[in-house]
Amino acid sequence: MTQSAAAFEQSLSAYAEIVEARLASLLDGSPRPAEIARPGQLIEAMHYGALNGGKRLRPYLVMQATRMFAGSDEAALQVGCALECLHSYSLVHDDLPAMDDDDLRRGKPTVHKQYDEATAILAGDGLLTYAFDIISSPETLVPDAAKVALVLELSRAAGIGGMAGGQMLDLAADRQQPDEAGIVRLQAMKTGALLRFACEAGAIIAGRPAQDRDRLRRFGEIIGRAFQVADDLLDVTSDAATLGKATGKDAAKGKATLVGLKGTDWARAELDRLVAEANALLEPYGSQAAPLEEAAHFIAYRKK
Amino acid sequence: MTQSAAAFEQSLSAYAEIVEARLASLLDGSPRPAEIARPGQLIEAMHYGALNGGKRLRPYLVMQATRMFAGSDEAALQVGCALECLHSYSLVHDDLPAMDDDDLRRGKPTVHKQYDEATAILAGDGLLTYAFDIISSPETLVPDAAKVALVLELSRAAGIGGMAGGQMLDLAADRQQPDEAGIVRLQAMKTGALLRFACEAGAIIAGRPAQDRDRLRRFGEIIGRAFQVADDLLDVTSDAATLGKATGKDAAKGKATLVGLKGTDWARAELDRLVAEANALLEPYGSQAAPLEEAAHFIAYRKK
Repeated sequence: MTQSAAAFEQSLSAYAEIVEARLASLLDGSPRPAEIARPGQLIEAMHYGALNGGKRLRPYLVMQATRMFAGSDEAALQVGCALECLHSYSLVHDDLPAMDDDDLRRGKPTVHKQYDEATAILAGDGLLTYAFDIISSPETLVPDAAKVALVLELSRAAGIGGMAGGQMLDLAADRQQPDEAGIVRLQAMKTGALLRFACEAGAIIAGRPAQDRDRLRRFGEIIGRAFQVADDLLDVTSDAATLGKATGKDAAKGKATLVGLKGTDWARAELDRLVAEANALLEPYGSQAAPLEEAAHFIAYRKK
Repeated sequence: MTQSAAAFEQSLSAYAEIVEARLASLLDGSPRPAEIARPGQLIEAMHYGALNGGKRLRPYLVMQATRMFAGSDEAALQVGCALECLHSYSLVHDDLPAMDDDDLRRGKPTVHKQYDEATAILAGDGLLTYAFDIISSPETLVPDAAKVALVLELSRAAGIGGMAGGQMLDLAADRQQPDEAGIVRLQAMKTGALLRFACEAGAIIAGRPAQDRDRLRRFGEIIGRAFQVADDLLDVTSDAATLGKATGKDAAKGKATLVGLKGTDWARAELDRLVAEANALLEPYGSQAAPLEEAAHFIAYRKK
């Protein structure tokens, strides 16, 4: 690992600890104003589903994008936690028997295995709903206009025209193989949309004009594509010991990926191209953009 | 039926048609800005789950509470549709095999029966997410401060400390019978919280001060209790032909209700008491409050 890659991973994991601590305090048992009670088992299952040792890449992007524009660290942390609740809900629901039917996640029983299916469905619903609670709460110190923009962008990134719609297309893809354009669209919806939101959120939190929002949004879309190509490439080229999960899963499932369609050489060249395209968008921000450039590099060339 | 009850039901069903038309246009297939695509089957299942011939009582309350304060009809319609998306999501998820395992709703196959379980889970997720999209969208013409308040109140009414938490308690109640206070809390969360939101939303949309918000919130809580007592009473005293669904369900399931615990005479007296208490809260608004008073009367004394 190069020195800068090591420093990046250290920075990422240090921030993951900050995110975990905030998530734990957001998901404690004490009811907030207008809440009647927080049922213990539901809180416990949400905690279990959200505090699962993830890399917390999405909150990290929110934080670095916000810092690039000199926005509030504290607001970025709140919005990052909201985004992580939303990401966690998607994992909990995707693992359900009726969906991808996974028993393990990061080597631990999935939420419906640890508790039961009803609890997993409700924990997912609870995490999804709580994301919007966190953004709109008085503790998130951004102006109302920014909160409204964050709620709108997050709901569109996560909903029918984004992540939830992408999961629907993914389930359909098992029956009917999509073509190249279909795969690109599916992945942009299923994984790209939340990464897009993470980056754009920084510009919104910092109160930047539309031009900066568009730039960061586009940067997020491109690193979202890189994220998926890297994921599909690792599934083909890595081994289970390095990756910490089974490899060759896509081929075994007969799942259509761009790497499967166009090969690993194409994928490596595509990652170079995407990183260059993403970083070119950050040129106006000069050296302030270095942490986001490193994040793009990490996303494209990570080993797990 | 008295003349005023007939007029009320006519007004309710006329507004239900307006809500259905708006919901249909909100749930059409054309992607909105920041959406990538709207998958056909997902939209169809959301449409099926949301456009199911409901009474649309919650949007009606939003509209009447907004009108009482001379707020915007158009904004009330949008917020009412958001609330109905959220209410519909809860029905779709509650009907799932892992939850209440219902095959029929209003005489039609439930969403997971008509499509499949994965589609029903995603349709529910999509409807829940879309509620926040609708409130925060530029088409909902209220100031940003009102949008933020609506998002916060709705997420708290729907989330861990409200509806989703109430469903969790309801599932636990099958194993461990709650006492009177436990039943009251469970019902306040599971059904009361959204009715509370519906009424308070009118004061928020119309930009009223905290004092009016509190009054409407309290009114909503009380008619929420009346709603549930009336529901439990009908389950005991009505017949399937009048009610349009099976009766005696609570007793057959061994479900703890206040009516089961305290009897039908108590329930009738309690409804009178709750209606009087609710309407006393509206006194400052004079004759402007008549439609909400009629709504409280309808909720308590409806025959189905």
